Amino acid sequence: MKLRKDRILGVDPGTNILGFGIIEIKDGLPIVLDANVLNLKEEIDQQSKLREIFLRIQEIIEAYSTGIMAVEAPFYAKNPQSMLKLGRAQGVAIAAAMVMGLDIQEFSPKKIKKSITGNGNASKEQVNLMIQSTLKYQFQTKYLDASDALATALCAFYQNQNPIADLNSKGGWEKFIKQNQDRIIKY
Amino acid sequence: MKLRKDRILGVDPGTNILGFGIIEIKDGLPIVLDANVLNLKEEIDQQSKLREIFLRIQEIIEAYSTGIMAVEAPFYAKNPQSMLKLGRAQGVAIAAAMVMGLDIQEFSPKKIKKSITGNGNASKEQVNLMIQSTLKYQFQTKYLDASDALATALCAFYQNQNPIADLNSKGGWEKFIKQNQDRIIKY
Repeated sequence: MKLRKDRILGVDPGTNILGFGIIEIKDGLPIVLDANVLNLKEEIDQQSKLREIFLRIQEIIEAYSTGIMAVEAPFYAKNPQSMLKLGRAQGVAIAAAMVMGLDIQEFSPKKIKKSITGNGNASKEQVNLMIQSTLKYQFQTKYLDASDALATALCAFYQNQNPIADLNSKGGWEKFIKQNQDRIIKY
Repeated sequence: MKLRKDRILGVDPGTNILGFGIIEIKDGLPIVLDANVLNLKEEIDQQSKLREIFLRIQEIIEAYSTGIMAVEAPFYAKNPQSMLKLGRAQGVAIAAAMVMGLDIQEFSPKKIKKSITGNGNASKEQVNLMIQSTLKYQFQTKYLDASDALATALCAFYQNQNPIADLNSKGGWEKFIKQNQDRIIKY
């Protein structure tokens, strides 16, 4: 399967509801191809949930040939047990994309909110409104996880347009240099 | 690739050191095929660590055609951040096995310790000694993660020999019935 670098799959992984959204960059502008959620509440155990995440993420990638996956990667949860489950859901989603050869990009919730609304502490509802107006899209689902997933894809689009925007933040140059060894001129 | 149900891969997933051990059941007795660790300390970022876990687990499965993967699944860690990382490592390892069609079985550290030493609160050193004498195996690595991984594989072997041992514990029958709908006789 030929992956398309002009299509970004945004994922907001959760163990009960997993949001996903796909955008395509057309003439430099993002348009929405799909946005919805996987409802995992009916899976009987953790194993079945992880299996479902893995298979459905691969189905979505196959359907849209997305070349990039952007993941919302929160660093906290209600309790340690939730953190572990969240980590597993993230790990399985990342592995599903990895095995299909996608570029995987991660963004913190704060970074996503900031890039969409200008405010790193915006509510999910504010993000949702901004997404609806920026992308001119009416959601078919009540779950804000779908809107979060689109926001994640859009954040990746903004970031990829201007990759050096983060270089002056902490560790930015260090990481850039590590990832671009071939661009170092050695005397 | 034809998977062998008589071979069990035990995994103790961590984000710095990942232990693995492979046993084969020969004439009803477990023998060790390999036990070692993946050292992930030198990977520059989380993404590279997860990629390394995914690829190396698949290499191990390919090398030994193990039909079963047993995972040590702890439910706690030093802090929430560690929990998330641990969850991700578990998720990626599980996905790597899932995509290759292995049966995946999970055991809590307490369950593993109990099944190996008879004591759910045994130390890693006690587990290590018991493994060395039960399996007549000298470890090539100083990391106890390799011994934990073999203990996990051995725990799966004991469990699979006597699958109904857990049915009388809390939720045991309920789960068994859910997983064996075809065995219910309906009038």
